[in-house]
Amino acid sequence: MSTETKHPRVPVDAPGPRRGLQIGEAAWDPEGFWGRRQETNAAHTFEHCASWMERLGWLENFDRVARGESTVERAGWEFADSEVYKLLEGLAWELGRRANPRLQALYDSLVARIGAAQAPDGYQGTAFGHPGLPPRYSNMSEGHELYNMGHLIQAAVARLRTYGDDALVQVARRAADHVCREFGEGARATLCGHPEIEVALAEFARATGEERYREQARIFLERRGRGTLPVRVLLSAEYFQDDTPIREADVLRGHAVRALYLSAGAVDVAVDTGDDDLLGALRRQWDRTVARRTFVTGGMGSRHQDEGFGEDWELPPDRAYCETCAGIASVMFSWRLLLATGEAKYADLIERTLHNVVATGPSEDGRAFFYANPLHVRVAGHEYAGEGVNMRAEGGVRAPWFDVSCCPTNVSRTFASTQAYAAFVDADALTLSLYGAGRIAADLGGETFEVRVDTAYPVEGRVEVTVERAPAREVALRLRVPGWAADARGTSPAGEVALAPGWWEVTRAFAPGDRVVLDLDLSPRLAWPDSRIDAQRGTVAVTRGPLVLCVESTDLPDGVAFEDVLLDAAAPLRAHGDGAIAAGLAPASAPDDAGVLPFTAEAPAAAELRAFELPLVPYHRWGARGPAQMRVMIPLAPTAPGT
Amino acid sequence: MSTETKHPRVPVDAPGPRRGLQIGEAAWDPEGFWGRRQETNAAHTFEHCASWMERLGWLENFDRVARGESTVERAGWEFADSEVYKLLEGLAWELGRRANPRLQALYDSLVARIGAAQAPDGYQGTAFGHPGLPPRYSNMSEGHELYNMGHLIQAAVARLRTYGDDALVQVARRAADHVCREFGEGARATLCGHPEIEVALAEFARATGEERYREQARIFLERRGRGTLPVRVLLSAEYFQDDTPIREADVLRGHAVRALYLSAGAVDVAVDTGDDDLLGALRRQWDRTVARRTFVTGGMGSRHQDEGFGEDWELPPDRAYCETCAGIASVMFSWRLLLATGEAKYADLIERTLHNVVATGPSEDGRAFFYANPLHVRVAGHEYAGEGVNMRAEGGVRAPWFDVSCCPTNVSRTFASTQAYAAFVDADALTLSLYGAGRIAADLGGETFEVRVDTAYPVEGRVEVTVERAPAREVALRLRVPGWAADARGTSPAGEVALAPGWWEVTRAFAPGDRVVLDLDLSPRLAWPDSRIDAQRGTVAVTRGPLVLCVESTDLPDGVAFEDVLLDAAAPLRAHGDGAIAAGLAPASAPDDAGVLPFTAEAPAAAELRAFELPLVPYHRWGARGPAQMRVMIPLAPTAPGT
Repeated sequence: MSTETKHPRVPVDAPGPRRGLQIGEAAWDPEGFWGRRQETNAAHTFEHCASWMERLGWLENFDRVARGESTVERAGWEFADSEVYKLLEGLAWELGRRANPRLQALYDSLVARIGAAQAPDGYQGTAFGHPGLPPRYSNMSEGHELYNMGHLIQAAVARLRTYGDDALVQVARRAADHVCREFGEGARATLCGHPEIEVALAEFARATGEERYREQARIFLERRGRGTLPVRVLLSAEYFQDDTPIREADVLRGHAVRALYLSAGAVDVAVDTGDDDLLGALRRQWDRTVARRTFVTGGMGSRHQDEGFGEDWELPPDRAYCETCAGIASVMFSWRLLLATGEAKYADLIERTLHNVVATGPSEDGRAFFYANPLHVRVAGHEYAGEGVNMRAEGGVRAPWFDVSCCPTNVSRTFASTQAYAAFVDADALTLSLYGAGRIAADLGGETFEVRVDTAYPVEGRVEVTVERAPAREVALRLRVPGWAADARGTSPAGEVALAPGWWEVTRAFAPGDRVVLDLDLSPRLAWPDSRIDAQRGTVAVTRGPLVLCVESTDLPDGVAFEDVLLDAAAPLRAHGDGAIAAGLAPASAPDDAGVLPFTAEAPAAAELRAFELPLVPYHRWGARGPAQMRVMIPLAPTAPGT
Repeated sequence: MSTETKHPRVPVDAPGPRRGLQIGEAAWDPEGFWGRRQETNAAHTFEHCASWMERLGWLENFDRVARGESTVERAGWEFADSEVYKLLEGLAWELGRRANPRLQALYDSLVARIGAAQAPDGYQGTAFGHPGLPPRYSNMSEGHELYNMGHLIQAAVARLRTYGDDALVQVARRAADHVCREFGEGARATLCGHPEIEVALAEFARATGEERYREQARIFLERRGRGTLPVRVLLSAEYFQDDTPIREADVLRGHAVRALYLSAGAVDVAVDTGDDDLLGALRRQWDRTVARRTFVTGGMGSRHQDEGFGEDWELPPDRAYCETCAGIASVMFSWRLLLATGEAKYADLIERTLHNVVATGPSEDGRAFFYANPLHVRVAGHEYAGEGVNMRAEGGVRAPWFDVSCCPTNVSRTFASTQAYAAFVDADALTLSLYGAGRIAADLGGETFEVRVDTAYPVEGRVEVTVERAPAREVALRLRVPGWAADARGTSPAGEVALAPGWWEVTRAFAPGDRVVLDLDLSPRLAWPDSRIDAQRGTVAVTRGPLVLCVESTDLPDGVAFEDVLLDAAAPLRAHGDGAIAAGLAPASAPDDAGVLPFTAEAPAAAELRAFELPLVPYHRWGARGPAQMRVMIPLAPTAPGT
């Protein structure tokens, strides 16, 4: 275990044979897919978020507590505090990546304001436990007090790993100590309705070397699933994952973000305590969740109601919730399983989710966001009227902020640290798991293995890795061949090889200038849903490398109604930029509504169909050209008889 | 208009060429489909509902107000009062149908208790406006005060039409006068978040002859749709139908029960004021709603979230809400349009909805209920653990009561008056619109036209109508040939004819003993969904006459997983009791979850399929044999190439 180290590590510092990269070990080029997002995040998103929180009074909440003037009239939901902490976490990663006086000043000022609101015993929160507010821990199901402190602690973890001890870390340490005192064995035997404190305390234990934080995380995990939390109408124990003990569950269920944060923290505890039973349970849950409750985008959460997973095979494109935050939480869960097991399937899901959920959330300018990421939108610009706070940006219109605004700061902290997902390190191997132009200089047992990655991925399929500095011994360079890749080829100093999905390992005594090149075929391809997915029957998706594509109404020819569009799967797909062109078909005319039910006694006769070119664009860019109807799962045209 | 009459009429006393039957004009035989339900309702359901309301304190709420001891700690939701009024409405219909000392005593005792809680100025309610409670009309969006009073007034309408003036009517009259004073032109310019007062006042105007009640209903209707109601997070103006004025809307939207109650009241106002513009708008809204937002069961409401309609073509079998109350409200709306226009399509939808939504709600013993009526349930017995209050009876387990318990009393008041939907009367015609064994003796311009109906409908397809008394002139007897009927035949004294859907009219000077017989073919048939219904693509339903059938897991052979069941549409369907047997197919084996997404790069190859007999039972009886998985829309087996 990484006890007593103050060395910066990002973002999960797991023990065991594999470790993630440290903060200085990887950097994206500023022009690549992830580098560009990181630059926009630094230039705009942090301050965008801070200005909204100031405007809505979420920061003032802390000042009022500090002045002893708190009231129930405070601004925002009980969990508004967490947005400030997530912003601080993102700033910590960003400042560790590159000094920035403007963002440093923002960080310092926010730390001062939240620190001033801390109670003498370490309690941190603006919605409970101060004069004029409800008592501390009086609403464990929905009060979010430990959730908020969890995000505070995660911000401190980021700071410890990128800088070291500071005022924020001290605030978090006092809060973590308070939580351990109040909720340890023999104290309050309850838990927080929204998991988050578990993963935070587990990471804090690693970052500080204090095992008791991890022990408190373990206590929260074991306590859960026994019906402890009071439930009210419409919120079941399943919603809180308080229905079944985590090591007995067989699939993720209930509120998606909660289930995934909980799972991430549970992997940390399982790994740090050598609990293979728990780790095995989490792996099984991941398997079934991915096989039966995950969209082709990697999105999770099938229900708007309860923001929940839904049941096996319940994957409706239109009502897909696929909250941006659930995508981030899924990456957190999968990354931990990747480090724990080394299995490439976890990296495959991370790639899919980052490119098609997390990257989809924010607008190109980093100042507007989707909350939910459905795979089918029937009404353009629905339920959103211009500037201001709104519930869920829908209909292709990203919103600048939300009443429940968890996604913007979550995207921001994730973008600020995506380079950490680029690779991981074994004793004698550097493994590239997420591709983008940049540089990796990893410590391999005291020697540096430094490579440059040149690629326009995911727009182009060639990934060139050039060794710049190598250990003076035989080591391995491993590149991931994604699960979707057919006909991949690799070229190394040892020659050219055909590659199957999984890890491509090149082992040798590398010398500067050695090149290892992966060639992935990014031709657009169909993705056929399992026949048990009821809401996707008779449809197909089009993908291009890691990108899921979609149809936008913007691209339809005149006279073709969006709901009539069919795809001719027998016709070839053509590449078109980073999208594709498919063969579209639509009935030549649609009937009027005659006041009869939409059911007929005879199977519908083959309609006369009009053919057209159907452009498909990357899903992560949908809505960029204005409000639109959109769909990922495209209805299949009936195949001509006999073909 | 029926001004100043005290003659009993049921249940909608519309002016114009067509009128519904009066309370004494029709009766079901006690053994028929509807008669049996009416008997069970009388024997069990009223007292079942009353005992739950007593047990939960919903009746005590009135006593506490009467004693001046009301507090915010009162029992139940703000709309709990309405359940008492709906129970009273049902009792009024039942007592009008047949004297019953036990139910009369229950009625009298409830009337005394609610009457004691009335404020001196006519205000009636237990959640606002008394000492210790929030002020009157302080939460128009969600307080349900006018909704509650609307149900009180509807109960009084039932009493006026079945009995005459009494204590309940006097309470309702004071409440209605209060509402007119408080919400008339120049008074509070607002409205109730849950429509109901509109239809209640419109009917009360007819039953009392007081036009000002109808004028107040008109005011509420015109006021709506202009964004008057405050909205909070997650509840939009659309939810309340406060987004668009009713005569400008083109489809029903938002909360389904609200939209349908509102529409029913709007037809009443349109008809009574000769407002053809409004009537035309409502007819257009009905047309599009039926064509694009209605399930094959007649169920309406596609979303659990907001209990709402959803969008055009959004008809997911699994997440179908199809609240029992929405079915009842849909019948109210359609019945009014049937009387206003005489078009058979409205009667078709009433038949479908009564048989497949309203009849589905309650258990055979009348003491347990479904709240939502989805068309696909993947998990048997889900979210319900035995006796007690629960949210939504799911997984094939009807619940004795609910926290929000609108459906039991709504079913009860509807069952008590279903005979009113059996027929309507023009100047010179008796038109049978809903079939069941019974007797109809209608006044046709001062002369009685009395017929017996003998039928085992919907189990059998023959409807025999025997004239027992006839006017001494030529009149018409009209029978509905349902829209689903193929090969219908009619036999009358004039001979035998083939019949197309619509009205079959037999005009003559009838004599006692004349028989008019309708023969409907009840062979099971497929119902193919419109290709634009995304969540039903690749499926088909099986119907038998007016009944929609379903598959229950109870009937599957060993080794066939419910989610694997396919229907071979090329094989013939066989009748089987009041259900059917189809040709089932299922893959011989299913793969394990391997931790990969449920998508494949190649179109799924034809699997080896196992054939079996697939029994189908009427949807209204699903769950009667215990918790089960269930589906109405059955996935189609792939057709063999070249067939």
